Amino acid sequence: MRIQTEPPTSPADYPFSHSIRVRFAETDAMGIVHHAAYLPYLEAARVEYLRAIDRPYTVLRESGIDLAVIEAHVRYIRPLRFDDVVEVHVVMSASTRASLQMSYLLTANGQRVATAVTAHACVDPEGRPTRMPTWLAALSVLSDEQVSSRSVRPVGDNQQSAS
Amino acid sequence: MRIQTEPPTSPADYPFSHSIRVRFAETDAMGIVHHAAYLPYLEAARVEYLRAIDRPYTVLRESGIDLAVIEAHVRYIRPLRFDDVVEVHVVMSASTRASLQMSYLLTANGQRVATAVTAHACVDPEGRPTRMPTWLAALSVLSDEQVSSRSVRPVGDNQQSAS
Amino acid sequence: MRIQTEPPTSPADYPFSHSIRVRFAETDAMGIVHHAAYLPYLEAARVEYLRAIDRPYTVLRESGIDLAVIEAHVRYIRPLRFDDVVEVHVVMSASTRASLQMSYLLTANGQRVATAVTAHACVDPEGRPTRMPTWLAALSVLSDEQVSSRSVRPVGDNQQSAS
Amino acid sequence: MRIQTEPPTSPADYPFSHSIRVRFAETDAMGIVHHAAYLPYLEAARVEYLRAIDRPYTVLRESGIDLAVIEAHVRYIRPLRFDDVVEVHVVMSASTRASLQMSYLLTANGQRVATAVTAHACVDPEGRPTRMPTWLAALSVLSDEQVSSRSVRPVGDNQQSAS
Repeated sequence: MRIQTEPPTSPADYPFSHSIRVRFAETDAMGIVHHAAYLPYLEAARVEYLRAIDRPYTVLRESGIDLAVIEAHVRYIRPLRFDDVVEVHVVMSASTRASLQMSYLLTANGQRVATAVTAHACVDPEGRPTRMPTWLAALSVLSDEQVSSRSVRPVGDNQQSAS
Repeated sequence: MRIQTEPPTSPADYPFSHSIRVRFAETDAMGIVHHAAYLPYLEAARVEYLRAIDRPYTVLRESGIDLAVIEAHVRYIRPLRFDDVVEVHVVMSASTRASLQMSYLLTANGQRVATAVTAHACVDPEGRPTRMPTWLAALSVLSDEQVSSRSVRPVGDNQQSAS
Repeated sequence: MRIQTEPPTSPADYPFSHSIRVRFAETDAMGIVHHAAYLPYLEAARVEYLRAIDRPYTVLRESGIDLAVIEAHVRYIRPLRFDDVVEVHVVMSASTRASLQMSYLLTANGQRVATAVTAHACVDPEGRPTRMPTWLAALSVLSDEQVSSRSVRPVGDNQQSAS
Repeated sequence: MRIQTEPPTSPADYPFSHSIRVRFAETDAMGIVHHAAYLPYLEAARVEYLRAIDRPYTVLRESGIDLAVIEAHVRYIRPLRFDDVVEVHVVMSASTRASLQMSYLLTANGQRVATAVTAHACVDPEGRPTRMPTWLAALSVLSDEQVSSRSVRPVGDNQQSAS
């Protein structure tokens, strides 16, 4: 029952991307970005994506809804190094009544460095599952339209598209 | 070609576990441990597991080998909170000539809180893929024996667990 | 008006210490522990110190009080490396009606690696300054007694240590 | 012998500032940015400052020099929250043959949120103290000129200005 979505591997298949400069604090003794540091990159890209479509995450939180991460998968392809600029491409790749999935492609210096998928559940301030609010459901549909207009097919066994 | 290993869900299926006290710095504004903080927990458990079987990771690094993370998957089941003690159960669930997989079960307060799988490649100090050293290969076999003695069948790169 | 406390430089002058194993995630591309990683070490030592004297921080938080950090000073003497075990010695070095100071000495491999001081204000869940609760004030006195029994003189807000 | 520099409290006294958007991962269970997260903010501002004056830190590192942090002091004035944009103002406030100090003022929503000072030593790749390279010494002078042209007086008992 795990997420099986395969993130698109071309930047053209993503409606949005967010640039992040690698901080020295994010590197480790192997001289590269520590693998745990990628998850905050994905999170920052989600937040900027929601802002870009006029649905800031802060508004969602103020309405008493959080998008708790229930699953995360990252495939590390090439290392990132201090001071690299990484482009985090993001697309909402699936949604249900109470959860959604986002896919990511990370590129730097013209090369793919990672792909990722995160799954999220709507929860209230006490962390209990709650129904996705109307405007967030509408957001998913919007996202699907953006994606379909770019001829991206969501893939994977457990995929549940919002359409 | 992603990792498909299903981590065992019973602590009895793991040869080793490591206790970690949740730090306040690891929580976020949802009042729970941030999802990115779990990856260092897994890493700490790997390191303690290798130490427990007399193969400290520092010795591996001194021999010019690092175990670069090439894939990570975490399923978050229940939230962790400040000051919780989490038990990170770890088992080497597969290995090839140049890579290996480890599975994890995280429990706290007698309940499952997460499962995870990480895949690793042997790399030299410049980050180039290198062959797994003899002693590390032996370690994998050792681990497999430990595992089989507990009736866990290690699974291959893209196989589903046999349960 | 900044904190001027000079942390004692001998472990004997501290009533409590907490051992922490350096995680790989805490290192940086210089091959040593990143300087920001020391602050969570201090925090973990504070938490364990309060637990050791039967005043767990979780109880304080449940009573609606947080100890917000209002100032932090760290002096880095020798680098820490992956897998080092660092001893974080901690002492409550001063307190007022609404704030307190803690001093730290970090040692590893028999050598001093850092000293630090943090200053904290009591705040309510909304972050507003609040009076230190009776039992926390008593705790400060207790701490002072422990300290004086070890011939350390607690120092005032802007005083230099008497040594 | 600790750093005594008092960071200027007006943005006008800083030659450079760098904007950072607070990430959710940087918050803690108090609902505010964790105090340890400020140090990477300072670091990012240093790096951008060096880039702005055409002396990128990566070039310094490639020449075999790192600027190890030997001391850090942060005064937290107002909390930062998720999604805030913090302006990190930075100025090189002192330098000697082998070390330098940088001062910081953090503002958000038109208010001061923190001040800070960091002290750095030039070290080689093995972490041994090394002399500040000519171009970095020149950089300090440049910085001092920038500062003096803005009528900033370095303050504090142990201040050693480069002049």
